[in-house]
Amino acid sequence: MNKSISKATPLRGPADHNVRTQIVEAAEEHFSHYGYEKTTVSDLAKSIGFSKAYIYKFFESKQAIGEVICGNCLNSIITGVKDEVEKASSPSIKFRHFFKKMVASSVELFFQDRKLYEIAAFAASENWAPTISYGKEVKQIIETLVREGRETGEFERKTPIDETVDAIYLVMRPFINPLLLQYNLDLAEEAPSLLSALVLRSLAP
Amino acid sequence: MNKSISKATPLRGPADHNVRTQIVEAAEEHFSHYGYEKTTVSDLAKSIGFSKAYIYKFFESKQAIGEVICGNCLNSIITGVKDEVEKASSPSIKFRHFFKKMVASSVELFFQDRKLYEIAAFAASENWAPTISYGKEVKQIIETLVREGRETGEFERKTPIDETVDAIYLVMRPFINPLLLQYNLDLAEEAPSLLSALVLRSLAP
Repeated sequence: MNKSISKATPLRGPADHNVRTQIVEAAEEHFSHYGYEKTTVSDLAKSIGFSKAYIYKFFESKQAIGEVICGNCLNSIITGVKDEVEKASSPSIKFRHFFKKMVASSVELFFQDRKLYEIAAFAASENWAPTISYGKEVKQIIETLVREGRETGEFERKTPIDETVDAIYLVMRPFINPLLLQYNLDLAEEAPSLLSALVLRSLAP
Repeated sequence: MNKSISKATPLRGPADHNVRTQIVEAAEEHFSHYGYEKTTVSDLAKSIGFSKAYIYKFFESKQAIGEVICGNCLNSIITGVKDEVEKASSPSIKFRHFFKKMVASSVELFFQDRKLYEIAAFAASENWAPTISYGKEVKQIIETLVREGRETGEFERKTPIDETVDAIYLVMRPFINPLLLQYNLDLAEEAPSLLSALVLRSLAP
């Protein structure tokens, strides 16, 4: 971290963006060592070499920083999943890949960066904005897949689409919501294929 | 509690059963006030008026008492659910009632007796014997319903029955496993009907 940026030349306007990113990156590193809940903004300021007041210029609270970190983390899962889905040929296969990849990415986060996972789990328990939009994004992907399957005639069209999407989301939720996944890790291997098959049977015309 | 039973005339043989029940009932009351995890066998002994040594004649550990309490609690859910299921006419309606009643009974336990619920949640997190047999009983009910529906032609017969049962159990699990339910309470009202409908679509021939 460059102390001179924070003290001597407080950047403004478009450059703010860089400082913001710098704070987020430093905070992410700090949290991933010491955990989110135990860290105060003072600890963080000391560790990353910015003054506390300076951090507050960019973020109104520790949670605001946590939200950006959590949002980045969940966005990277969504991006990876979308890439995976695009590769598949039919809506059925897309759905299988989608479910499998969502769970695999979430499990990977859990095992690779436990402290970041804890931020995501905490965020989910407190209904932070990024976890709410994560849920919406997942539902959006489900809806796109269901619509595609309905158009190609691969899926049934009688059930109201909202009902179908909400129900599928509920089936997936225990394995993709960071708060719940930690209690379902022992099923994370077999559940996606068993549940994808059940969901696809429910979608059959 | 009758102190004279525990000190003067240690009962044996068939009468043991009564003392056992007495200890369990007293322990249940004690745990439901003070919680399971915080209580030691010494606390329990003092509170219910038996000597610690006497309690150990009947139960090898606090967990052994907790297991009986947890088992009774889960058995009463299963019994209530079976009564409910029997009332319904077709396998589809039975399944809907089954799912709804399972969740309603679990939620009731949560809100009516939080400390007992905590024993059940702790038991589920530690994989105690009663929670394992609870899971098996739930799967057994699912299997009976699926077989019945297959026999009457209401449900499809292509999918291996074990796969069908395991998948349906996974769908229900977040709402009936005491460890998981506490994180899903806000969905406990809408989930059973949405998910029952999805499961029944998946069972359609």
